[in-house]
Amino acid sequence: MTRNLVVQNPPRVDQAHCDALAGYGVATVHEAMGRIGLLDAGIRPIQSGTRIAGNAVTVLAAPGDNWMLHVGVEQCRPGDILVVATTSPCTDGYFGDLLATSLMSKGVQGLIIDAGCRDVMDLREMGFPVWSRAISAQGTVKATLGSVNVPVVCAGQQVRAGDVIVADDDGVVCVRREDVVTSIEASKAREAREAEKRGRLAAGELGLDIYNMRESLERAGLEYVDYASEYGA
Amino acid sequence: MTRNLVVQNPPRVDQAHCDALAGYGVATVHEAMGRIGLLDAGIRPIQSGTRIAGNAVTVLAAPGDNWMLHVGVEQCRPGDILVVATTSPCTDGYFGDLLATSLMSKGVQGLIIDAGCRDVMDLREMGFPVWSRAISAQGTVKATLGSVNVPVVCAGQQVRAGDVIVADDDGVVCVRREDVVTSIEASKAREAREAEKRGRLAAGELGLDIYNMRESLERAGLEYVDYASEYGA
Amino acid sequence: MTRNLVVQNPPRVDQAHCDALAGYGVATVHEAMGRIGLLDAGIRPIQSGTRIAGNAVTVLAAPGDNWMLHVGVEQCRPGDILVVATTSPCTDGYFGDLLATSLMSKGVQGLIIDAGCRDVMDLREMGFPVWSRAISAQGTVKATLGSVNVPVVCAGQQVRAGDVIVADDDGVVCVRREDVVTSIEASKAREAREAEKRGRLAAGELGLDIYNMRESLERAGLEYVDYASEYGA
Amino acid sequence: MTRNLVVQNPPRVDQAHCDALAGYGVATVHEAMGRIGLLDAGIRPIQSGTRIAGNAVTVLAAPGDNWMLHVGVEQCRPGDILVVATTSPCTDGYFGDLLATSLMSKGVQGLIIDAGCRDVMDLREMGFPVWSRAISAQGTVKATLGSVNVPVVCAGQQVRAGDVIVADDDGVVCVRREDVVTSIEASKAREAREAEKRGRLAAGELGLDIYNMRESLERAGLEYVDYASEYGA
Amino acid sequence: MTRNLVVQNPPRVDQAHCDALAGYGVATVHEAMGRIGLLDAGIRPIQSGTRIAGNAVTVLAAPGDNWMLHVGVEQCRPGDILVVATTSPCTDGYFGDLLATSLMSKGVQGLIIDAGCRDVMDLREMGFPVWSRAISAQGTVKATLGSVNVPVVCAGQQVRAGDVIVADDDGVVCVRREDVVTSIEASKAREAREAEKRGRLAAGELGLDIYNMRESLERAGLEYVDYASEYGA
Amino acid sequence: MTRNLVVQNPPRVDQAHCDALAGYGVATVHEAMGRIGLLDAGIRPIQSGTRIAGNAVTVLAAPGDNWMLHVGVEQCRPGDILVVATTSPCTDGYFGDLLATSLMSKGVQGLIIDAGCRDVMDLREMGFPVWSRAISAQGTVKATLGSVNVPVVCAGQQVRAGDVIVADDDGVVCVRREDVVTSIEASKAREAREAEKRGRLAAGELGLDIYNMRESLERAGLEYVDYASEYGA
Repeated sequence: MTRNLVVQNPPRVDQAHCDALAGYGVATVHEAMGRIGLLDAGIRPIQSGTRIAGNAVTVLAAPGDNWMLHVGVEQCRPGDILVVATTSPCTDGYFGDLLATSLMSKGVQGLIIDAGCRDVMDLREMGFPVWSRAISAQGTVKATLGSVNVPVVCAGQQVRAGDVIVADDDGVVCVRREDVVTSIEASKAREAREAEKRGRLAAGELGLDIYNMRESLERAGLEYVDYASEYGA
Repeated sequence: MTRNLVVQNPPRVDQAHCDALAGYGVATVHEAMGRIGLLDAGIRPIQSGTRIAGNAVTVLAAPGDNWMLHVGVEQCRPGDILVVATTSPCTDGYFGDLLATSLMSKGVQGLIIDAGCRDVMDLREMGFPVWSRAISAQGTVKATLGSVNVPVVCAGQQVRAGDVIVADDDGVVCVRREDVVTSIEASKAREAREAEKRGRLAAGELGLDIYNMRESLERAGLEYVDYASEYGA
Repeated sequence: MTRNLVVQNPPRVDQAHCDALAGYGVATVHEAMGRIGLLDAGIRPIQSGTRIAGNAVTVLAAPGDNWMLHVGVEQCRPGDILVVATTSPCTDGYFGDLLATSLMSKGVQGLIIDAGCRDVMDLREMGFPVWSRAISAQGTVKATLGSVNVPVVCAGQQVRAGDVIVADDDGVVCVRREDVVTSIEASKAREAREAEKRGRLAAGELGLDIYNMRESLERAGLEYVDYASEYGA
Repeated sequence: MTRNLVVQNPPRVDQAHCDALAGYGVATVHEAMGRIGLLDAGIRPIQSGTRIAGNAVTVLAAPGDNWMLHVGVEQCRPGDILVVATTSPCTDGYFGDLLATSLMSKGVQGLIIDAGCRDVMDLREMGFPVWSRAISAQGTVKATLGSVNVPVVCAGQQVRAGDVIVADDDGVVCVRREDVVTSIEASKAREAREAEKRGRLAAGELGLDIYNMRESLERAGLEYVDYASEYGA
Repeated sequence: MTRNLVVQNPPRVDQAHCDALAGYGVATVHEAMGRIGLLDAGIRPIQSGTRIAGNAVTVLAAPGDNWMLHVGVEQCRPGDILVVATTSPCTDGYFGDLLATSLMSKGVQGLIIDAGCRDVMDLREMGFPVWSRAISAQGTVKATLGSVNVPVVCAGQQVRAGDVIVADDDGVVCVRREDVVTSIEASKAREAREAEKRGRLAAGELGLDIYNMRESLERAGLEYVDYASEYGA
Repeated sequence: MTRNLVVQNPPRVDQAHCDALAGYGVATVHEAMGRIGLLDAGIRPIQSGTRIAGNAVTVLAAPGDNWMLHVGVEQCRPGDILVVATTSPCTDGYFGDLLATSLMSKGVQGLIIDAGCRDVMDLREMGFPVWSRAISAQGTVKATLGSVNVPVVCAGQQVRAGDVIVADDDGVVCVRREDVVTSIEASKAREAREAEKRGRLAAGELGLDIYNMRESLERAGLEYVDYASEYGA
């Protein structure tokens, strides 16, 4: 049954581990984990070229109501990333330059919000990165409770306080805190494999050959035909 | 019943007043008015970092038909903003570099269109700002009448000729011409309040304290718990 | 009935002709052809200010499965543009920096994909242009056959191998290979007409007069009224 | 600027006039008025085969907050139709069987809501018709004021208290109260014209001939060709 | 380049063949052909429980303009199905009871339209089946030419005059006329296979065993674990 | 990190408890729990008037791939409800009459799927209820592993094996298995309160009075004005 909770002092992952994940980026980490944890593609950055990773502080808020974001700020520590989900779909502008100022003063790295943000000219100037579903100036009220640091579903993925969020131009992925170490190792291994392949591909070798696909394609029934013989000259 | 009208010489608001609103921007003006007038979040700028405000010249057009935009151009005066609504949803490219050239020669500041625009590389180079629902090269015909300077619903908001449009990266807000003076005052007051709060937030003070939220949160039933005691170590 | 084909050596249009079309851009080519061939407005560039044209190499892929892209790469020649359609709607990230590396080594100009791409920071740095329906890091498998260089419907338009794709910030248009020469001529003629009009519009002449619209508007029943007489002072 | 108003005793149109409009139905009334007033196609009935018309009582509500619906009920009179718009997009279930019970006890004919409703099994059993954007059980709060009987934009159309709403399986149309009498006359005339055409079409006569289209089609450039000569046998 | 054509006397498939396909239904025919030809899932029937198949007469129409539907009617023969595509996305009500009356008098079986229809209460009473993207009373004009019986892309699939359309509650599939005979055979074979499997499944046998999936699942790495051992009691 | 698991013998809730929840229905259970657990409004029933509740057996499947549904069937027991989520958004027809036959033979009550289903005419005749995001005949492959009875996010809500699903015409709600008993009690209490209110509302009493809203509305600033004095006669 619903209780409105602020969960204090959740476990956190070392920022050094977060930084390692940030070094690999969203696509590599997502792949290395086995293609899990990705927030849906409707969450887009308001800026370009920024890549961050940090511990999630989660907020669950009512539609059109940003009261709990103010509560969430207090639970943030340097390096954290604020993650906001709503109890029903909403594109209102929950977040603007004042909340960003507050978060920056706490050392928070960025915001992920399955709703709208505003003051985006200011946010870009301030260098505070945001990934959101919408940009909207629509104001919100402060009337209905939600919760902070409880598990939430944000853009289709469960996120818990202290899970690690990695975000860049490709979107946002959540790494469960118990998977962080293996994710770093798997990302490192994947990046090494990719670097080797990148070189070969750049040299003109084909993926068909590098990945040994020709035989399995043939076995699956792929036919090569010539345009002229298939469709006539 | 439908008449196809071109309403000439609608009332206009002084450009100085428009400029004052532009100085505050969409989010502040929308909030200061009491959270009204905002066009829906599907209307997005094709450029970044531009903020304008001016008197609306309204156009109501048929789907896939930009005839009335040419009629609308003649009704524009320096400083105006052309606002285009359609009689049914359409993403076609009603507007491109030629119409922009024409509007620029009249001193028009920009375009708001609940449909598509095209030639966006040219428009960005020319510095003519557009907020639209889509970017689409799809051509339009000139066959069906609409109206100019009648009240329209554009992206969910009623806009009348001579209402003031404010537009920036956060979207577009319509200020009713009779509310312009009070909106300026309210925006000025809001900005002052925000400046004071911004300083306190930047200094690390919490919104929870600045806005005196702690007591009302508690009264509403918010519970603070420790992670370890709630979920176990 | 379905066969999984790779059609080799389709006809191609001279790159010089493609370059001519690129010079005119999507909106002009689309208009000049009589407003056909435009892919739907949901296909957007991940970059800004790039304009290309080249022969299509088509790929039909299963949802969440990028196996056939690897097959498609081998069929590409310098100047080609890879065009990917899926057998059902999907926003997964079929394409990233490795496939881009491979395509660049073959001299391919860019990618059009009715699905998602990823590694967009890398793609932008590499200067490999992509037009896609989504940006998503979601990984794909290599398990189900599709086809290469068969006619596909991509974003609402039929595209055949060797049709010419023109893409820029306005979107993507497909020119049937048999229409290329007439499209170039028609584009040239249109551009000439537009240049003349652009000058007149810039000088303040109205489209109403340039296009002789006043009489037809009146005949259609357009009424000019004065605001004060229509709505009262 | 925003005030939260309940406007009492708005003008109303005679129910006999509403009934006349109901007799013609949404498509005919919309056409007869000159194709205006139609709410967008996202508003769908939860039942089938019901056609009503009555005076609008308008409600403007916050997202996820149905407080003002309770205020609106008191302003309803027998024959009225409750019309609910929200200040930002929301699909929550603002309305269920209890509010329907209350409205039925007041003699209200139905509900139009640009949001969600719930208890649809009950509503269908009770015979209380609803046109909504969504069906959703999501509960709403009672915390934020809105207004009653002020002009609202509902699903893209302005609706004022005392305008007439006509609703059936085709959707919902708003007839401005000052246009009711002419709309009835125009609908009657249109229906008569259509009845005559329906007979001729049923007898096999073609619209091409009834509407004299052949000449204008030819003048516009329509070409008739034979399949065999155009595409070969 | 665009010409506005009415192609007369396209090839047609025997109605007996169409009827055979109708007997199998959309899902079976689509599967039997190898999972091709399906129009997108946004095209939905306005009625329930109807299944038809017939030769396509294709119409390409401008947005908000149903002129060409009247032209298309004349090209229809008994048993045909009218298939309407638009040159850009549009949900307007192109089709209502008058056009249905006209088509019924010609013996046409139904309508597929990638746009809106209206008068749905009448259409259901008349028993004229329609599959459409929207239901909307929004009226259309008769001002812009399109074509009849040229190949169109309708809801993501190419449809040519004389291809066979099969439609039921699952949606709409297009069978190329050259594939009709093999599609009937493949559908018959599939239905026989399915009947045998249906009996076994109804008797409690598992698909895992009927389709021999267990070994391939294991080889692919599927692990069976017990809840208690995986998550603790 | 990803493992592909089939979790056997998850905990289950007594069917008697499920039946109790079914008796209250989705809206009441959702409200009684404090407005949590509701799947998003895009999940709609293919039938009308059916209400079920049972233990969830969860399936996580790849896009366009229904292999794991066959695996899931084996884990079902009488009274269960199959809940299918996908690893990325997909509307393909994962489920048709054969799988329904198999589930019915196991005594499964219904299917919840965040994707498409097909054979809906058959499913309705068989009386097997389905709640899905789409109806689509699009066939799926059997090539990629997923998991069964692991926690999934389905339509925005986390669902674990043995959580209770309640589904009716209002949508689908998930009750965590540890909340079932309190949810039944809270639902019973809510229903009692609603029955009392329903009687008073039916008798003409206003919600404004029953819920004592007048004072709080006034305190919040709601103004009552007369139309004539506000807008003039």
